[in-house]
Parts: sequence; structure tokens; C-alpha cells
Amino acid sequence: MIPIPTDLPLKVDLYSDTLTRPSDEMREVMAAAAVGDEQKGEDPSTNELLDLVKALLGKEEAVFLPSGTMCNEIAFAAHCRPGDEILLDEKSHALQYEGGGPAALAGALVRPLPGERGVFTARQLEGAIKPVSRYTPRTRLVSVEQPSVGAAGHCWTLPEIRDVTEAAHRHGLRTHLDGARLFNAVVATGTSAREFADGFDSAWIDLSKGLGAPFGGVLAGDREFITEAWRLKQRWGGAMRQSGIMAAAGTFALRHNIDRLAEDHENARVLADRLAASTRISVDPIEVETNIVLFDLVHTEMSAMELNERLIKEAGVRVSAFGPSTVRAVTHLDVSTPDILYAADAIAGILAA
Amino acid sequence: MIPIPTDLPLKVDLYSDTLTRPSDEMREVMAAAAVGDEQKGEDPSTNELLDLVKALLGKEEAVFLPSGTMCNEIAFAAHCRPGDEILLDEKSHALQYEGGGPAALAGALVRPLPGERGVFTARQLEGAIKPVSRYTPRTRLVSVEQPSVGAAGHCWTLPEIRDVTEAAHRHGLRTHLDGARLFNAVVATGTSAREFADGFDSAWIDLSKGLGAPFGGVLAGDREFITEAWRLKQRWGGAMRQSGIMAAAGTFALRHNIDRLAEDHENARVLADRLAASTRISVDPIEVETNIVLFDLVHTEMSAMELNERLIKEAGVRVSAFGPSTVRAVTHLDVSTPDILYAADAIAGILAA
Amino acid sequence: MIPIPTDLPLKVDLYSDTLTRPSDEMREVMAAAAVGDEQKGEDPSTNELLDLVKALLGKEEAVFLPSGTMCNEIAFAAHCRPGDEILLDEKSHALQYEGGGPAALAGALVRPLPGERGVFTARQLEGAIKPVSRYTPRTRLVSVEQPSVGAAGHCWTLPEIRDVTEAAHRHGLRTHLDGARLFNAVVATGTSAREFADGFDSAWIDLSKGLGAPFGGVLAGDREFITEAWRLKQRWGGAMRQSGIMAAAGTFALRHNIDRLAEDHENARVLADRLAASTRISVDPIEVETNIVLFDLVHTEMSAMELNERLIKEAGVRVSAFGPSTVRAVTHLDVSTPDILYAADAIAGILAA
Amino acid sequence: MIPIPTDLPLKVDLYSDTLTRPSDEMREVMAAAAVGDEQKGEDPSTNELLDLVKALLGKEEAVFLPSGTMCNEIAFAAHCRPGDEILLDEKSHALQYEGGGPAALAGALVRPLPGERGVFTARQLEGAIKPVSRYTPRTRLVSVEQPSVGAAGHCWTLPEIRDVTEAAHRHGLRTHLDGARLFNAVVATGTSAREFADGFDSAWIDLSKGLGAPFGGVLAGDREFITEAWRLKQRWGGAMRQSGIMAAAGTFALRHNIDRLAEDHENARVLADRLAASTRISVDPIEVETNIVLFDLVHTEMSAMELNERLIKEAGVRVSAFGPSTVRAVTHLDVSTPDILYAADAIAGILAA
Repeated sequence: MIPIPTDLPLKVDLYSDTLTRPSDEMREVMAAAAVGDEQKGEDPSTNELLDLVKALLGKEEAVFLPSGTMCNEIAFAAHCRPGDEILLDEKSHALQYEGGGPAALAGALVRPLPGERGVFTARQLEGAIKPVSRYTPRTRLVSVEQPSVGAAGHCWTLPEIRDVTEAAHRHGLRTHLDGARLFNAVVATGTSAREFADGFDSAWIDLSKGLGAPFGGVLAGDREFITEAWRLKQRWGGAMRQSGIMAAAGTFALRHNIDRLAEDHENARVLADRLAASTRISVDPIEVETNIVLFDLVHTEMSAMELNERLIKEAGVRVSAFGPSTVRAVTHLDVSTPDILYAADAIAGILAA
Repeated sequence: MIPIPTDLPLKVDLYSDTLTRPSDEMREVMAAAAVGDEQKGEDPSTNELLDLVKALLGKEEAVFLPSGTMCNEIAFAAHCRPGDEILLDEKSHALQYEGGGPAALAGALVRPLPGERGVFTARQLEGAIKPVSRYTPRTRLVSVEQPSVGAAGHCWTLPEIRDVTEAAHRHGLRTHLDGARLFNAVVATGTSAREFADGFDSAWIDLSKGLGAPFGGVLAGDREFITEAWRLKQRWGGAMRQSGIMAAAGTFALRHNIDRLAEDHENARVLADRLAASTRISVDPIEVETNIVLFDLVHTEMSAMELNERLIKEAGVRVSAFGPSTVRAVTHLDVSTPDILYAADAIAGILAA
Repeated sequence: MIPIPTDLPLKVDLYSDTLTRPSDEMREVMAAAAVGDEQKGEDPSTNELLDLVKALLGKEEAVFLPSGTMCNEIAFAAHCRPGDEILLDEKSHALQYEGGGPAALAGALVRPLPGERGVFTARQLEGAIKPVSRYTPRTRLVSVEQPSVGAAGHCWTLPEIRDVTEAAHRHGLRTHLDGARLFNAVVATGTSAREFADGFDSAWIDLSKGLGAPFGGVLAGDREFITEAWRLKQRWGGAMRQSGIMAAAGTFALRHNIDRLAEDHENARVLADRLAASTRISVDPIEVETNIVLFDLVHTEMSAMELNERLIKEAGVRVSAFGPSTVRAVTHLDVSTPDILYAADAIAGILAA
Repeated sequence: MIPIPTDLPLKVDLYSDTLTRPSDEMREVMAAAAVGDEQKGEDPSTNELLDLVKALLGKEEAVFLPSGTMCNEIAFAAHCRPGDEILLDEKSHALQYEGGGPAALAGALVRPLPGERGVFTARQLEGAIKPVSRYTPRTRLVSVEQPSVGAAGHCWTLPEIRDVTEAAHRHGLRTHLDGARLFNAVVATGTSAREFADGFDSAWIDLSKGLGAPFGGVLAGDREFITEAWRLKQRWGGAMRQSGIMAAAGTFALRHNIDRLAEDHENARVLADRLAASTRISVDPIEVETNIVLFDLVHTEMSAMELNERLIKEAGVRVSAFGPSTVRAVTHLDVSTPDILYAADAIAGILAA
């Protein structure tokens, strides 16, 4: 996740699906969007987006936010009081890549659970809930990331999710769904977003990433929760003005770019299959469920960072170093199957040299 | 500042200059903007905007943020540690309308100074600095709002600003400029933004409001400050993706819409002059320096809120209730001189009835 | 309030009533106190103290804390969520001398009201309550300091207090009583502590200061409030072990040292009367209601700090500099009437020289 | 650690070494202690205690605080800025039993390391340090608990500690020593407190617990650190008045009660040996290094909590339930060897019945 700056034009950029650029069609929709003051609820395109997301997730209310990180962090701060404890998988984005936000912004202690590829069980959850006493942090919230980005896009099954949310509610905890790439899981599993979101008190989806909009996320929940989220959004400076231009891109993405995520998933499997043929790469194609491929460099002294630097310079391909010898490649709508084959060969070639 | 919802189409909306909508020309520029991932510094349109603002404000580095509130609140959190004290005018936006952000996000105590129309003196500042001791909050930052929105857009003179920033630095304080409407002050006084920003460790401008872009602000300072601001931006969820579309609107606004603020100021004076003729309105046109007109209802039992409700319903004009009998009207690029005359007559008419 | 270090033995120390030392009788009681683990509710001497304070203040539950500052700050954090607003007099100890605690610990914005000698009115309070909106901090708590230490121990009357607490409750605010020197007000006015505390959701008294115990304060309120206070006490490290030794001193102080505060008040008036005779001192003896004398140096170039330094060196008397030319002297149980006369003459003498 | 209330007089209380009561000799010393205002540095008995601890730990400055929890939490807040990350063992008291303080008070994310009986390695530490980026929390502090209370008082060896502190400093981290029972480790290992504390930027010891004083801890570090700690102490309400009475008990404990901790350790081993004879108890006497015995109930349906309830009722013995079938017993200066034998037999008897 450490950015590697590059001045070279890249042929194939597999750094992240956050890199997708709005298509011409999406840009036209944005240019024509009806707008108003979002803070006053007067932006029609934003309202249209919110209605769409409420329907998709089956929630009462929703709010448009500048990023997925703000969706997570505002939800944490709305659910928790300082000193409360949040339970989540140890690989979670919120824990690893949000700058310590849960502690700094919500004052919440985060307890990482050692999930299996990002998935923890109701039993693990129940074992982690602290008894109520003056001494212990108040266990307050469980957060689920579907799919788990840190676990190469592995998806929770619906029963796994339900077990966890039901256990949480039995113990009086609140539940939060980090759906940064929720539609990848929807497409991969055939389960609807509404079903996945059903047991959660708050849930959000990202409009950039695989869906290809340039900006924003939508956080949803019941009326009381969203009222509090709006207070935090205003305080943190996430309230916007004529947000309709960005919202229109989001609506377009939700209407046109969900089903095509299947192509990204297919491309990811193609990439994994091709890489698996290299003796210097360890990767299990069966573990590729969505659009993320994690692979390890073996029988070589080349580090992930070195491979990436050479790939950029020698082949115009960018991936990312996910660990000393672990590499991550992410497929998305700006990458075609021929691009993937080109990238796979470039990787194998540099490792073989 | 309490929004009044309306379903009626409005003829003249003087609620705020935050209501301006992007023009067709601005929309074309947005639709054609080159984009990349802003979090990786790869969005060319955002980089162009940042370069422009750095030049305008004379600062080393800058960062694009979703709103002016985030510019203020991130600056406070970057300058202060929990328990530090911020000095600012008692009418400041940051104190009144940012949801308690300075305390909730920076952990900073805010000490309001009783300025004269939003302007406090170096002497007041020095009188408020607490001696260093275990008992007292550590006075850390002085924030200046130029012009003061709470004081109807009254502008600080350059010497007034310099006195305060020099006094602050003599005492080891940091200095922050809230330039939500800085270019209104620039146009009204003939002093450049760079001169106003000179004595400040951090300064920001808003791209929406009078300038007419739909979104965002730019916060500037030295490299170390902006590095810390970026950490906070990431943590709070203000980091974006293909932000170039919004940034391009900002660049367009800075290139085309600064000089024309003079028209808004002229319209504000026209409005004040016309209102001054009513016996039920107390307003001093000489106090109208920029694009904000504050006036009081006198010799009438009608409240500001009631006036606004009737204006909306009966004339399609919206203002805002700024106090029980104080009304605020703001001119902007979507309002013409004939609109202003129509609105003034509508106000006077309803009060006379 | 800035400490002036001294190695010289002092004859008369009027720096603060926090300086009182436990008497031999009090020490005997402490040495014999029954003890247990306070965190488990098993310390009998602490329980006895709590029962006594609950009866004195008419509250359901109480908790023993290491200091008055912790009583204030825990109450603020228990009543407020981050971003809430606290209203109090601008001279309040919690605002001036608690290291920015309300912002750093509760995340609360503090709005200082310009009281008349520490006393603000229900009308001022109501004028300061912010309307509920996404933009404004949520006004949550009003705090009253009885008597006002920053206003030389001036006492609120019972009707003044009731007006304010009733107005607060009408608007859904919570109410907090800072009773650092509450018994001075009780003795000065003849109104009971219970009556003063009646309209407050939380109230505390200090055991050191005029009462002469070496340590601690007791915070009281209803069961739910004290449960939350205990959580914060544990988290902040205010929970103790065999606290009975300190608690026994507090119980002794409450049983023996309340009525004798009248002597301190009489001594303060004697001091003020004597000082009023000096042409270089401006003081109004009528304003001396409890045990604090504030006086100004006039017709002299000597600063308060300089006077204090010379007093210590030349006469073994210590006061404190409360402003550039304002001096504070506090009477207490370790100072007799002859001490007072000696100190007054020393002060007048140095000023006359 | 869940308190079990009891109204019965207990014969042998092994709940915790926090239960020790001051001896008659200690009470005499307390009653005779010279005192002054601690906040002004004028309390001679406190100053004497601080000098003694500075010498014992080899640190420049020190501060007296009401509890060990405050020593930990103030150190965290002094070392960290909001959003920073603290590394510590997953069983740490600061993580488990301080009410979420690190997050609520310092705004710090806590990353638990899976140590071996409370001891983690330099390699684990280095593997957990996050790369510096906008996305990641800033890894800032490593905290070591010596001995680990959650691991039944297991002691770090000096080389283990040095490896970790040296690795931490190589990476620019600060280091903190939680020495709640440091002298138990000193007595058990023969290594001095000064040697253990050497590589730490901050270190503290508790005066209650095994040492038998009724109150307080002392936090030590360099001058700059203690200056900041004093600011926090004042803000949080940990500043005291005539603290000498409590400090004198601490000095007495340090002078008289360190060597005798060997008796507690011997008693703990006796207890473990005796318990090991029961077929319903699983305990390894070799793992008992200090004064804490953890044992598991096996081949029985009796829970730890049920055993404790019956022990209290039927034998006047109290232990504590540390898990569903894990029991903790702690020896201390109010428990003799015959007490231990009585307790062991009572435990075995109830389990056998």
C-alpha cells in the first residue's frame, strides 16, 4: 500500500481499482447533472443517489460522503462513546489503513480478531466480548468487511455474516458493514447487497473502486443513526455543496457497472492462472474470488518492491508491494484481458531473468 | 443559519453564496478535466489547482479538501495538541457553525475574543495569552476570519492583520487564516490575497461560495504543516480519488470569477440602499463592504423567520433569519441587479403590509 | 495563580486555603481509620464519607476522587459527548485553571458567559443556548461555581441559582455545581448545601481548601451518573486502594470544620478593612463575602508580583499575584486574626516605603 | 478480575495484593509525615519519595500519582499524539483493565502483540512497526509490563527487555515500562530495578500491591517528559495537596517491604505445589515465579466463579475467577504460610466433594 511514484506512462496499472477513470459516458452524465445545495438537502442528483442506495441496501436513510474512510470513521464515532471497544478482523482496512482513526476520532479501542482469511466466527466474537465492569472497555460494535481486501477479496458467506450479526445483537452490540467492494461480493456469490446488509445497523458502499465513479461513498442506516452521522459529517467537513455532479457519477456507476465486475473477477483468475505457471511465484488461483490477486515471490531474492520498480520501468506495468515478498494486483474496468496477459508475462519474465 | 425547507421554485435566492451553481462553461471544463488518483498525487487537474493557490497565497504547499470546514478543522488539529487553546473572534464560523469541531477533533479549548465587527486587536490578543503553567491551557493558535461572515462581511485592514500576526509570533503562537471569502476582501480592499496571507502559518480559500465552484477548499502552508494535514485528511476521510473534475471547477473559478465579485458587492450595496428606505428596516449601507447584508426589523412584530417564510411563499425570495429580528441576505453570481431590486421591494412590501 | 517558589519559612501564608495542614487531631483520626479496597467498595471509611456527603447534598450516590479538578472534569465527560457545549461563567476555575480539560477530556466546547461577579442570569443562559442544527455544537450542560473563586468568593443567592437550573432543565440541559468552596457559601449565606445542590444533576465539594483535609473531593449525583463517573474514574486512574485514611480526614473535616469557616470570613473582612486604609490599595470590604480578598495596587508602580516577592523576603508573608496589579489573599484555618493584622501591616508598609 | 461482593469476614483473601492494609508501623509514619502543598512542590515527604524512586529507577525526574492506571495512561498521552499506535502484549493490564484509556485519553490505537507468557520479542516488535505513510497509524510507543500480571507474574529477562528497547529506539519509538509489580521481578530475578528501567523513556512503580502502601504510584522519566506528565496530571485531576501522608507510606514500603516479597513468592510456590496434588486442578508450579498462581479446573463441572463463591461461603477464602475455568490466587503481606495451606486445602476439598 506504499505508493510508488511514477512519471512514466503506464500500460497496465494493477495498483488498485481506485485508479479507474470516469468514462466519456459517465462524464456526460456528470456534466448534465441537476444540482443544489447538498447541506440543505436540495441537491436532486444526490437525493436520487441516496434513494438508490437505500433501496439496494434496504435501509431507511443514507448520506453521501467524500470517501469510504469517512463512511467507516463516522459510523464508528456515531456508534461509540470514547472508551468503547470495536471488534473487527485483524486485516481490516479500518485498522490498518485509516491512520488510527477509530482511536483518534471515536476514542474507541480496537480489538483485532484473528479471522480466517478475514472471516471471524460468532464464537470468536462472543469470546472477545468483555464482561461489563468498571475496568473493562465497553464492547460496543462489531465491524465486518465484505469482501476482505486484506485477504485478497475473500467473501463472507451469508450464513457466516448472519451468525456474527445475530450473536452481536444477542449481546447488545451494534453492527457495521464495511462494503468498500460489496458489489464484488454480490457478483461473486450471487447474494444480494440487501441480504448482506440486512443484519447491520450501518452499512456503506464505495462508488469509486470497482464501480468506476471518481468519488465518494454512501453510508446508510436508520433515521437516528443518519441524523448523528450528518452532525459528524458537518463537523468533520464532509458536508458538500453542489455534490450532484459527483453523485450523478455514482448513480451511473450503480446502474451500469455492477454486473460487469464479473469481467474483473474473470481477469483476476486469468492472471492468477498464468502466474501460477511461474516457479518463482506461489499463488492459489482457487483463492481468487473477486478482483484481487495476492501472490508470493519464492525461490528468488527479488523483493516485492524491487519487482514493482522493475515492472514499472521495464514494462509499464504497476502492481503493489503488499509485504516484503508479497505482491498485490487488482483488476478493474480500465484493464482488459489482453492487458492482463501482457502483465502476467512481464511479471514472470522479470522474475525469470 | 437554520435552513428553511422549500419545495417552491425560488425566483431570487439570497440565502447564501454557497447556493451558486456551476455555469455551462464551468461544466464543460469539468467534463474535460484530466484525472488520476489524488491520494497518490497523480491527479493533474488537482495539481494544477494546488499550484495556482500556492502562487496566490504565497505558500510552499497546499492540499485540496472537500470543504472549508475541513480546512479549518484540520488546521486546528495540525497546529494544536489536546488541551491547547485557540484564540479567535466570538463571531467566528469555526466557533459557531462547525459543530464543536475544535474541541471534538483537536481537543482544543476555544477562547472567543470580543472583536469589533469581527476584528480584534493585537492588544486584545496579548491580553488573552495565558501564562505558561501547569494549570492553564497552552495558548497555541490565533485564527483570523477575513472577512468576518458573522459581522456582515466586514474586512480586516492589512495593518490590523499584521499587528495581530506579528504579536502572535512574538509570543510563539501559530497563526491561521480562515479565508472562506478571502477574495471578497481582496476585491473590496484592493489588497492581494498573498499580502493578506503573508503572516499566517496556514491559510485557506473556499472554491464554492462567491467563486461559484460546486465543491471544495484549498488549505496551504509550509511543507511540514501540509504533511501533517495530509495525515489528518486521510484519517478523516477527506482524501479523494479522481478529484480532478472538482478541482478543474475550482481552477476555472479562480481564473474567471474573482474580479466579478465586485458586482456582488455592488448588488449588496444596492440592496442595502433600497432596504434603508423602509421605516421597518434598520440597516447602514456604509457597513456593507462585500456581499453580505445584515438588517434588523424594527417597529414591527414580524420576526425574521416569519418574514422569510412569507417571502418564500408570496414572492419566491429566500433570505435567512440570523437572529430573532435580524435578517441576512447574500448576493452571488446567480443573482442580478434586477433580481436584487425585486427582492428589496418584496421585503419592504411584506413589512409594510 | 502562578506559584512563587520560596525556601524561606513563611510566617503567614495567604496564598491559598489549599495550604492548610491536617491538625494533630485529624492525623489521629487518619491513623486509626478502618480501611479496605476502595475499588471494590470495601473501604468502610470511604463509605462513611460518601454517606455523609450524600446526606449533605441530598444526592442518591457519590464517589470519592483525588481532587476537585477531577470532580469537574469527570462530570463534564460523563454529561457530554464530544462536540457538546458547556456554558459557564468566564471566570470559572474549570475554564481558566484546569489545563483545557473540558476540551481535551470531554471534547466539549466551552462557552464563557460574562457574569456579574461570577453570577450569570437565566436570561443570559437562554440567550446562549444554540438552536439544534447540524452546524451548531449541541448545548448540553451548564456549570455553576458557588462561590465564584475568580470573583473573590462572591456567592450566588439561592434564587439566582434556581432561576438558572430551572431554565437549564426547561431547555433539556444538564446542570453541574462546582462546590470547591460550597461550605464557605453555606456559612456566608445561611442557606444549606442541600438547598444549593438541589437543582443540579451533579454536585461536588472539596475536602481540602477551607475544610482543612489534606486530600480529595466528593462528586455526587444519581445512580446512573455515578456509575458512569466510576467508569471514568477507573479509566483516568482516580480509583484508589485503601483510601480510608484520606477519607477519614474528609469526614473529620466535614464534622468539625464547617462552622469555623465563619472565622476565616471574619479574618478576610478584617484584612480588607485594614488594607482599605492604605492609599495605594483599592479594595471594597463590602465585597468580601467569604475567605478571599482581591485588591488592586493603585498610585504605585509596584506590580502584584513584585509586592509578593518583597513580602515573602521582607516579612515572611505570601499572597498571590492575580493580575498585573491585582493581589489575592485567602484566609484559612492555619491563619489567626493576629496573623492577619501582621500581614496587612506588612503589605501596607511595603507599599508605603 | 470481576469483583465478587462479600459481606462475610474473610479468613484468607487471595483476590489480589491490592488488598494489603497498612501496618501499625506504617500508619505511625504516615501520621507523623511532614506535609505541604504538593502542587507547589512544597510537600517534603512527597519530595523524599520522588528522590528515592528516581534513585531506584535511575531517572532524572518523577511525579507522584494516585494510581498505577494513571501512571500508564498519562505516559501514553505524553508520548503519543492522537492517531499514534502503541505496541504491547495482548494480555497487558493497560489494554484489558484500564477502561479503553489509551484510545479515550491519548487517542492512540493499541496493537496487541501475541507474546509468549507476556513476553514478546524484538523481531515481533519490528514486524509490527508500520511503514510511515499517510494511511497508516504512526507507530510511536512500545510498552512492556514487568512482570506480566496476565501471565501469572512471568518475568522478562534483562536481555529480553534490552532487545526490545534497543529495537524500539533503533526505529525511533519511545519505550514505557509498566512496573506495577516491578519489585516482584527484581526479587525473583536478582536484577535491579535500575537495570530493568534503563532502556525505558518512562517507567513507574506501584506503592500499593505487594509493597503494602495504601495508595499511589510514581512515574519517572526525563525532565521534559515529567513536565508534560505534570500538565496532564493537573488536567486530569491527579494533582494533590498535602500528599505527604500517602507519600510517607510509599517511602516506608520501599524501605521495608521489598526484600520480604520473597516470602510472598515462596508462599505462591507452596500454594501451587499443594494444589498440584489435586486431580481436579491443572497447575505447573515451575511457572510460579512471583506472587501469582493461575490454575485451571479440570475433570469437574464446577466453574471458577462457582468455586470462588463456595470458597467464600464455606471457608472464608477468596480467590478470583480469571476465566470460565481459570482461577487466580495472589499472595501478599497479609497472608502467612499457614493461611496458604488452609486455603489450598479448602480449594482441594470443595473440588473433591
